[in-house]
Amino acid sequence: MNLQEIDDLIRQAANKATKETNDEPEPGLTQDVVWPVDVKIGKGLEGAIATTTRIGYVNGAKGWLVYRGYNCFDLAEKSNFEETTYLLLFGKLPTTSELRNFKQKLVRYRSVPRKVFEVLKMVITPKTHPMSALETAVSVLGNLDEQANDTSAAGETEIAVKLIAQLATLAGAAARLHQGKSPLAPDPELSHAGNFLYMVTGKQPDEFSERIMDIALILHADHGMNASTFTTMVVNSSLSDMYSSVVAGIASLKGPLHGGANERVLYDLEEIGSAANVKTWFEKARETKRKVMGFGHRVYKAYDPRARIFGPIARLMAEKNPAIGGLYETAAELEKVVCGELGAEKKIFPNVDFYSGIIYKALGIETAMFTPIFAVSRIAGWTARALEYLADNRLFRPRAVYIGPIKAEYVPIEKR
Amino acid sequence: MNLQEIDDLIRQAANKATKETNDEPEPGLTQDVVWPVDVKIGKGLEGAIATTTRIGYVNGAKGWLVYRGYNCFDLAEKSNFEETTYLLLFGKLPTTSELRNFKQKLVRYRSVPRKVFEVLKMVITPKTHPMSALETAVSVLGNLDEQANDTSAAGETEIAVKLIAQLATLAGAAARLHQGKSPLAPDPELSHAGNFLYMVTGKQPDEFSERIMDIALILHADHGMNASTFTTMVVNSSLSDMYSSVVAGIASLKGPLHGGANERVLYDLEEIGSAANVKTWFEKARETKRKVMGFGHRVYKAYDPRARIFGPIARLMAEKNPAIGGLYETAAELEKVVCGELGAEKKIFPNVDFYSGIIYKALGIETAMFTPIFAVSRIAGWTARALEYLADNRLFRPRAVYIGPIKAEYVPIEKR
Repeated sequence: MNLQEIDDLIRQAANKATKETNDEPEPGLTQDVVWPVDVKIGKGLEGAIATTTRIGYVNGAKGWLVYRGYNCFDLAEKSNFEETTYLLLFGKLPTTSELRNFKQKLVRYRSVPRKVFEVLKMVITPKTHPMSALETAVSVLGNLDEQANDTSAAGETEIAVKLIAQLATLAGAAARLHQGKSPLAPDPELSHAGNFLYMVTGKQPDEFSERIMDIALILHADHGMNASTFTTMVVNSSLSDMYSSVVAGIASLKGPLHGGANERVLYDLEEIGSAANVKTWFEKARETKRKVMGFGHRVYKAYDPRARIFGPIARLMAEKNPAIGGLYETAAELEKVVCGELGAEKKIFPNVDFYSGIIYKALGIETAMFTPIFAVSRIAGWTARALEYLADNRLFRPRAVYIGPIKAEYVPIEKR
Repeated sequence: MNLQEIDDLIRQAANKATKETNDEPEPGLTQDVVWPVDVKIGKGLEGAIATTTRIGYVNGAKGWLVYRGYNCFDLAEKSNFEETTYLLLFGKLPTTSELRNFKQKLVRYRSVPRKVFEVLKMVITPKTHPMSALETAVSVLGNLDEQANDTSAAGETEIAVKLIAQLATLAGAAARLHQGKSPLAPDPELSHAGNFLYMVTGKQPDEFSERIMDIALILHADHGMNASTFTTMVVNSSLSDMYSSVVAGIASLKGPLHGGANERVLYDLEEIGSAANVKTWFEKARETKRKVMGFGHRVYKAYDPRARIFGPIARLMAEKNPAIGGLYETAAELEKVVCGELGAEKKIFPNVDFYSGIIYKALGIETAMFTPIFAVSRIAGWTARALEYLADNRLFRPRAVYIGPIKAEYVPIEKR
C-alpha cells in the first residue's frame, strides 16, 4: 500500500476525463450579469440566476468541477482539505506561512464548549438522525458565542473558520454517541481529515485512510448552487448570523433528495447481496419503477468527475479489504448493467454518491454518518459562498404567483 | 374599555383602505403558470417565480393582504388565530366541530418534553438572542420525536400542528428564562393568544390584551413569499423534515433585514424621547443618511394594511396606558414628519413594524421578544406553504453564474 498509487489513480481519472470530454473552455463561460436579467425558469427555481460567483463552477455537460479556477482532479491529487478550504474562503492558494497559520487556527478552534456535548448526550439515541443532532449542536454553539451576532465580514469569516473546525469535532462526537460511546478529544497533532477520522472511528488512522478521507473532503467541499449552499446563503442574506445560516444548511442537507443519497446506495447494494444478483434485481427495479440510487444528476449529463476518482479508489480499497470486496463487485456490476441497459436509451452515469459509501464503509464508518461527512466538507462551500454574497448582500425574496380566490366572503361559523 | 371599540377601529381601517385604493380585483390576478416560464429577475431573486400558491396574496400596489381569499381586515375583526391557522393549513374556514377539534389538538400539543426546557436553561442568558434559543429548542424537539422523519403529507401536517402549538410554549419559556425566571406551564383553559401572553408575561391576560395579541397573531400569520417562508420551503423541498424546516425558518426570521425591524423601531422611538424632538432627530437622520426604521416595504407601495390596523390600536392602548403615551405620540409625530417630508418626493408609508412594537410594549412584553412573537404567528404560513409545496415537490436549486477563471494552474506551495 502506498500513497503514490492513489495519486496515480487520480491522474488516470483526470486523463480519462480529458479524453472523453472536449476540454476546451467554452466561449462565454464567464458572463457579466447585469440585473435584472431575462431568464427561463422551471419549478424548483431551475435555471433562475440567484447570484454571480467566483467560488466554484460546475459544467454538467463536460463533467467539470472547478474551485476558484482549479479543477478538482488537481486539487484531489495535490491539495488537502485545509488548503482547499483556504482557497474557497479567501480566493487564492495560500503561501507556506498562510497555510501554516490557517491550519493552526483550525486546530485551536477544534474544541467546543462542554455544554454542547451535554446537549448532544441528551438528544442522541440510536434512533436519532446524526444530522438532526449536528443541527442542534451548531445552534447551541451559536447561543453560547457572544460574538455570534457580529455580522460584519470579518466577524462572519472568523465564525466560518471556527465552524469549519468545530463541525468535524461535533460530527465525531455524534458518531461516538450514536454508538453509545463517549466522544473523544480532538488530537492536535493530526490533520483535519486525520483528526476527523480518528474522532469518528476511535482509531489513529494510517496514512492511507487519512489521505482518502482528505480526498473525500476536498471533493465534497463545493458544488455550485446546490440546495444546502443556497439555503445557507438565503438565511445569511437576512443578516441573521453565520451559526444560524450553517444550521439551516445542515437542515437542508439532511434531506434524502440532497445529502442522503449515498446512504441509500449502500442499503441497495446490501439488499442486492452479490454481483450475481444484480441483473435480476435491476430488472425487478425497472419493472416496479423503483429509482436506482447513485445514478444521474440534476447537473451532470457527463460522468461525474468525483465518481471518476471515487470508483478506482473504491476498487483499490476493496483489493486490500476483503470485507468490502463483495460490495465493490456488486457496485461495479450494477454500474455495468445500469449504464449498459439504460445507456442505450440515454447517457447515464454513476454520480458522486455511488462509490463514496463503499469507501466510507471501508474506512470503518457507519452508514448513518455518511451525510454528516458530507456536511463536514461542504461547510467550506456554504460559508465561502455566504460570505461572498454578504459582500454585496440583498435579501433573497422570490415571489409566488397566487392562483386562489381573491374576494371570499367571511361567513360566520354558525352558518358554515 | 370594551372589545367593540377594537372591532370598530378595524372596520374603520378597512373602510379607509377601500376608499384610498381601487378595491376592484385586477384582471389576470389569477394566472396559470406553465413551467418553464420567462421572467425578468433581479438580485436576491426579486421577481423570480418560485411557485404557485393558493394560500395567500399580497398586492403591494393596492395594499391588500389576503389569506385564502379572505382579506386581512375581515379576519382581524371576525376570526381568531386558531381559525386563521386552520384556514391557512386546510384551505377553508372550519365548521364549529372542526374548529373545536383543532383547538383541542393545539391545547393537547402545548406541552413539550422536559429535556427541551433543560437545554433552554443551559443556553439562555440575558445576552442570548431568544430567536437563537427558539432555533435550538425546535431542533431539540425534532431529535426527540421519533416521528420526525415521517415526510408523508399526513406526517408533516401533524408535526406542523404540533409545532404551531409548541412554538408558543417555547417562546413563553424563552421569555421567562431570558428574564431569569422559571418557565410557566401552559394554561389549557386559555386561547392560543391568551395562553401565549400568559406564558410570556406571567399574568392572566384581560380580554382586551388577549384580543389584541390574537389580532397581532392573525395579521402576521402569512405574507407572501417572504424570506423565512421561502427558507422553510427550500429546506422542506429536500424532504428533510418539518422540524428542520421550521428551524431554518426561525434562523432566517432572526435576521434584522427580516424579522428584527420592530425591535429597532422601538429603540429609535426611545432614542428620540418625545414628540417635540422628532423634527430635529429626523433632519439629522436624513443628513447622516441613517435609515429610519418602520417605513417603506419591499412589496407595499401603498399603506400596509396591517399598519392601518396597528396604528389605531396603538393609539387606543396609549389612551388607556399613560406609560406608553409618550412613545405613541412620538411615533405619530414621526409618521407625520416622515410621510409629510418624504411623501412630497415619493409615496412612503409606515409598515407593519412601525406600530406593533408599541403595542407589544403596552402588553408588557420586553423588546427582545418581538421577533419571537412574529415567529409564533408566522409558523402558520411557513408550515402551510411548505405543505402545499410538498404536494408537488421539486428540490429548490437555482443556479449561480460563474464569473471567475476557468483554468488555473496549480502551483506547488513552495513556488507561490
